[in-house]
Amino acid sequence: MTPARGDHDARRSEVSEGVWRVLSSRGFEGLTLRAVAAELGASTGLLTHYFPNKRALLGHALEELDRRSGSRPRRTAPADGSPPPPAGLARLRAALLDVLPLDEAAVAGNRIWVGSWDVALADPELAAAHAGRYGRSREALEGHVADAQRLGELPAGADAAALAAAAQAFVLGLVVQALFAPGEFPPERQTALLDGYLAGLAAG
Amino acid sequence: MTPARGDHDARRSEVSEGVWRVLSSRGFEGLTLRAVAAELGASTGLLTHYFPNKRALLGHALEELDRRSGSRPRRTAPADGSPPPPAGLARLRAALLDVLPLDEAAVAGNRIWVGSWDVALADPELAAAHAGRYGRSREALEGHVADAQRLGELPAGADAAALAAAAQAFVLGLVVQALFAPGEFPPERQTALLDGYLAGLAAG
Repeated sequence: MTPARGDHDARRSEVSEGVWRVLSSRGFEGLTLRAVAAELGASTGLLTHYFPNKRALLGHALEELDRRSGSRPRRTAPADGSPPPPAGLARLRAALLDVLPLDEAAVAGNRIWVGSWDVALADPELAAAHAGRYGRSREALEGHVADAQRLGELPAGADAAALAAAAQAFVLGLVVQALFAPGEFPPERQTALLDGYLAGLAAG
Repeated sequence: MTPARGDHDARRSEVSEGVWRVLSSRGFEGLTLRAVAAELGASTGLLTHYFPNKRALLGHALEELDRRSGSRPRRTAPADGSPPPPAGLARLRAALLDVLPLDEAAVAGNRIWVGSWDVALADPELAAAHAGRYGRSREALEGHVADAQRLGELPAGADAAALAAAAQAFVLGLVVQALFAPGEFPPERQTALLDGYLAGLAAG
């Protein structure tokens, strides 16, 4: 990274890459202007042009996390434009699989999501933003549950909101387990545990 | 906190309290020698006597987390020496309730546990220690599952290790949801979601 004036967007994207690499290896705790500067071979002074303080750097990191999470290919929104799995249980399963660390990109993204919880819980504004994200995600899951109930794939009498909250809890906790013990929770075991969970729901 | 020589243990305990208060309000990201010194009204120099560097401070914080988690009253090990719930499904339920943020102390402890994941994932030694803790916890749950199977409270054919891993995932994810959205996940809803989960297991 050179301090000379250049393509502003390219520079900004280079800075974002540096932030992401520091986050991936050291987490939010290790995310400092100095660490990002070192990662980019730039001066701390140059970095303060982008991030006047630590909070601005954290804010950017969370935006970047959002952007990358939103743009990565998902089973519920295939990158090639092919249709998602059919509505109901298949789409609920796809949405839950989309959360799990089943490949390298999803491991990196999840590692940073999980790391963001410490920072977010310490800041009411960031905590509210995270709570909003998880709330919207539960609403989407609730829609899939309701579809599955209409289709007779899940028991009609069950509380769809409760099933959605429970399913979200299940995958989030599985993410944490898999990040700490990847050897015990390879992708096929994560998938089998999720399928066992969904079979239990279907059995009512 | 006075810099004069005094009861070493009392001083150390005072320092630990300060570390805990900083963690509760600002998380690991905000845990610095300077923040602990300010919390205690002490000099940063005095704190370096206890913690020569940031890593020593983090290590102490995680030990303190272990100590407090181990010594808080639990349903599976009542403080008054009364017997725990009977072996089987009741004890499995008690062990899972022990994890959830159902009262103020459990909220504070969980907030710090969740916050520790960022730091732990960035450090192979700390990550291995956390993985070991969760592994031991899964083993204990597996024992309760096996007891419940022997007693006919859970289906005998199910894989006890998988049920234990799934149950742990469920409560860990519920912890995260409840920390971010305490209004949506009051203690009675957390308990109801757990009971719904256990009923699903029992139904097979």
